Amino acid sequence: MTATDLDLQPVLERLDTSVDDSVERLFALLRIRSISTDPAYREECRSAAQWLVDDLTSIGFDASVRDTQGHPMVVAHHEGPEGAPHVLFYGHYDVQPVDPIELWEDDPFAPALKQRDGTTVITGRGASDDKGQLMTFVEACRAYKAVHGALPCRVTILFEGEEESGSPSLKPFLEANAEELKAEVALVCDTSMWDRQTPAISGSLRGLVGEEITVSAADRDLHSGHYGGAAANPIHILTRILADMHDETGRVTIPHFYDGVEEVPAQQLESWKALGMTDEQFLGEIDLKHPAGEKGRSVLELTWARPTAEVNGITGGYTGDGFKTVIAAKASAKVSFRLVAGQEPQAIRDNFRAFVRERVPADCRIDFADHGASPANILAADSPAVIAAKTTLSDEWPKPAAVIGMGGSIPIVGDFKTMLGMDSLLVGFALSDDRIHSPNEKYELTSFAKGQRSWARILDALARHDG
Amino acid sequence: MTATDLDLQPVLERLDTSVDDSVERLFALLRIRSISTDPAYREECRSAAQWLVDDLTSIGFDASVRDTQGHPMVVAHHEGPEGAPHVLFYGHYDVQPVDPIELWEDDPFAPALKQRDGTTVITGRGASDDKGQLMTFVEACRAYKAVHGALPCRVTILFEGEEESGSPSLKPFLEANAEELKAEVALVCDTSMWDRQTPAISGSLRGLVGEEITVSAADRDLHSGHYGGAAANPIHILTRILADMHDETGRVTIPHFYDGVEEVPAQQLESWKALGMTDEQFLGEIDLKHPAGEKGRSVLELTWARPTAEVNGITGGYTGDGFKTVIAAKASAKVSFRLVAGQEPQAIRDNFRAFVRERVPADCRIDFADHGASPANILAADSPAVIAAKTTLSDEWPKPAAVIGMGGSIPIVGDFKTMLGMDSLLVGFALSDDRIHSPNEKYELTSFAKGQRSWARILDALARHDG
Repeated sequence: MTATDLDLQPVLERLDTSVDDSVERLFALLRIRSISTDPAYREECRSAAQWLVDDLTSIGFDASVRDTQGHPMVVAHHEGPEGAPHVLFYGHYDVQPVDPIELWEDDPFAPALKQRDGTTVITGRGASDDKGQLMTFVEACRAYKAVHGALPCRVTILFEGEEESGSPSLKPFLEANAEELKAEVALVCDTSMWDRQTPAISGSLRGLVGEEITVSAADRDLHSGHYGGAAANPIHILTRILADMHDETGRVTIPHFYDGVEEVPAQQLESWKALGMTDEQFLGEIDLKHPAGEKGRSVLELTWARPTAEVNGITGGYTGDGFKTVIAAKASAKVSFRLVAGQEPQAIRDNFRAFVRERVPADCRIDFADHGASPANILAADSPAVIAAKTTLSDEWPKPAAVIGMGGSIPIVGDFKTMLGMDSLLVGFALSDDRIHSPNEKYELTSFAKGQRSWARILDALARHDG
Repeated sequence: MTATDLDLQPVLERLDTSVDDSVERLFALLRIRSISTDPAYREECRSAAQWLVDDLTSIGFDASVRDTQGHPMVVAHHEGPEGAPHVLFYGHYDVQPVDPIELWEDDPFAPALKQRDGTTVITGRGASDDKGQLMTFVEACRAYKAVHGALPCRVTILFEGEEESGSPSLKPFLEANAEELKAEVALVCDTSMWDRQTPAISGSLRGLVGEEITVSAADRDLHSGHYGGAAANPIHILTRILADMHDETGRVTIPHFYDGVEEVPAQQLESWKALGMTDEQFLGEIDLKHPAGEKGRSVLELTWARPTAEVNGITGGYTGDGFKTVIAAKASAKVSFRLVAGQEPQAIRDNFRAFVRERVPADCRIDFADHGASPANILAADSPAVIAAKTTLSDEWPKPAAVIGMGGSIPIVGDFKTMLGMDSLLVGFALSDDRIHSPNEKYELTSFAKGQRSWARILDALARHDG
C-alpha cells in the first residue's frame, strides 16, 4: 500500500456527511473544564487527556496519558504507508479561565450551536483555542480510517495540557521523549486564518531575546538639591543607552545586529502586498497612523520579517503621585529583541551587553538579567511542505492560501526546532473575532468543517509529495 | 538712644554667665511634644506656641499666638533704636516624629546634657531642628534686654508650627499679614555650620521647577510580537527626549536654558576652593568618584551655582518580576530643574515644554503636569548684611565664616522674597552629625552657647552697619 492508493475525495465526502457527529464529539470535549492555571480543575485536565486517549484509541491510535510534574501529555502513534512522511501533530487540550463569568451569554462549559451575525458558531470556552482546532485534525484522521482503514502519513500526536499556563513541563518532556516524538515536520493547529475567505500558513516566526539591565550609581537615593549636577543620575545613563539603540531611520544601532539578516524576496513582498492590508488599516486599529520602525518598509514586513529592539518596561526613582526631588540609586529597563532568520540569540545578547557596557560611566555599575531566548523559526515559502499545503488549502477555500509571517514567538515551535530538529507548519482556522481568552469564545462551524477537510487535504498532499 | 550706645561686650559676657539658665529654658521647650504631622499632638503644638509667646512676652516682646487652619504661628514684635534696621527672625517650633522609637538611647522628650565623643551635647527631639537653633536668637535678645533694656535692631519674630509637615498655612499667613511681617532682611536659623570650626552663611539657594511628562501612543498596551517594529513605543520616544536634554559635556541643551545665568566670580570660586572640600571627598561619601554634570566645574560650583535638569522618576510598561513583551500605551517621567539667579521659572517651563513637543511624533500625544516652581534666591556675597555677618561670625568662631551656596531650595526663603520682597540671611549652628529627623538627635552645647553669642554679634553688626 502507498499513499496514492488512499483517494482523498471519499475522505472529504465522509467528512461532509459526519459533521453533526464531529460536533457532538467536540461538545463532549468542551464540557470538560480543563482550566490549567487553576489547581481546582486538576482532575478535569486529566479527564480531558483521558477523553482524547480514548477517542484516539477508538480510531486505531496507540495512545496514552503521560504523566508530567504538571498536567499530563497525550501521546499517540499511528503507522503510515511504507515510505510515507512522518508528521507530528501538536495541539493543547487545556483552556483559559472564564473570568469575568458574568459577561458570558451562556455557560462556558455548555457548548452549543448558535447563530451569530448570520453565521453558525460553536460556543464555549476552548471552542477555538484549542479544542476545536485540534479536533479538526483528529476528525480528518477518523475519516481516513473509516474510508480506507489507514492514514496517508505516519502520524504522531502530542497534546499538551499546560499551554495556557506557560508550558512548564513541555521542554523536559520533549527532552525525555525526543526519539519517540521526532518526525519530519510538525503540524501545529493553534493559529488563525488571514480572513474568512483566506487560509493562512504561518511561514515564519520571529525569535526572542529578553534582557533586563539595571544601572546603579550612588550607594543610596540622593536629594537632588544637595547632589544634583554633581552626582551621576542612573536614569540619565539608562535613557541615553536606550535612546542610542535606534538611529533616526529606526534602524537598530547595536553593532552586528543585522548580521545574517536577509532581505525578504521581492516575490514574497508582492504576495504580502496582495493581501491588501495597508499600514493605515493595521495601525488604525490601535489609533496610530505612522509606522515607527525602519523607514521605507510596510508594517507587514516590519512585524513579520524584520528584527526589532523594544523597551518593554522602564522604572527608576519616584513614580508615585506628586513629586519627590530624588536622584535614584538605580534605574532599570526590560528590553526584548525580536529576531528573524540568520540572527543568533546568544550573539545578539552578547553584542547588546557590550553596547551597554560601553556607555556606562566609570564609577557606575551595570547588571544584566537573562530573560530567555529563542531563535527565529522559518519554514521557507518554497519548502516542499509549504508548497504542498498552500496548493491544497487554496483548492479548499474561496481565496488562495497566504504564506504569512508572525511577529510573535511561539515557544513550542522553537522547541521543536532546537530540541527535535523539526520545522513546523502552522495552519489554523481560527478567526480574529473568535474571542479566545475572553468571554463568549466561539469557533465558526465553517472553520470546524472546512478545517477537517483542510487537514485531510494536507495529509494527502504531504504523502503524495513525499512519496 | 542709638545702636552704638548698646555695647556688645557686656551682652556677650551676660550670655556666657547664663548658659545654664538658657539650657534649662531650652529643656522646657524640648519637653513639649510638638510633632506637627501627627494629629495626636495638636494640643502640644499649641502649648509650644504658647510657651514661646510667654517667654517672649517676659522679655518685653509684644507676642501672640496666631491661629491658622493648621498649627498656630507665633508673631512677636520689639522696637529698636531710631534708624536701626528692622529684621524678621524665622524659626519653627514643630519637630519630626520620633519613630523608630526603639533606636533612641533616651526618651526623645526628656532632654539632657550628655557627653558624646568628648563633647557636651543637648539630647532630644528638636534639640537641633529647630528649637535649639531658634532659642539661640531668643537668648541673644534676652541678654540685650537684661544688660541694656533694649535691642539694637527693631525685631519681628515669626515661629512656624508646620515646617516639618509642608508648611500648608505659611503662604496664606504671609499674604494676610504681609505689612506686619515685612522687614529689611529675614534672619533664618535652620541651617548648618560648614564644620565644627567654621560658621556658614548660606548666600544662595537654587530655585526649582517640577514637571511631569507623559507620552502616549497606541490606545492600549500592545503585544510586542504582533506590533513590535510597526507601532510607536512611548518609552522609546520618552528616553530619546530625556537623553537629548544633555549634551556630552553635561550641559543642558534646552534652548535658552542658560539665559541670564552668570559665571560665579573668580573670588567666590577661590573662597569655595579654600574650604578644602575636594570632588573626591564630596562624591566619596556616596560611593562615587566622578562629577557627572558640566565638565570643568567643581562639585561645589555644580551644586551651589549651576542650574540642572534631572529626571527624578521614570516609569512605563511592565516593571514587575520576570518579563512581559508589551509595548506600553504610555510612559512618563518626572523632571526637575534646579535654577540659579537670573533664570525665570516660567520661561524654563515653557522652553522645556517646547523642547519636548518638538520631539513627539505626529500621532503620539504628550501631556504635562506642573509640579510647582520657585526662583533661585541669592543674597550676594558683597551685600552689606552678608559682609557684616561674615565679619562678626569670623570673630566669634575659630575659623573665618564661609559664604556657601545651597543646592536645595528652602521654600520659606522663596516666599519671603516673592511675597514680602525680603532677602534672607541664613545662619545656623547645626552640625551635619546632629541626626535631625533621626533617633538620638543632639545639638552641641557649643553650638547653643556660641550660637547665642553669634546672634548678639549679628544684631550688633547689622545695627552699626545700618546706623
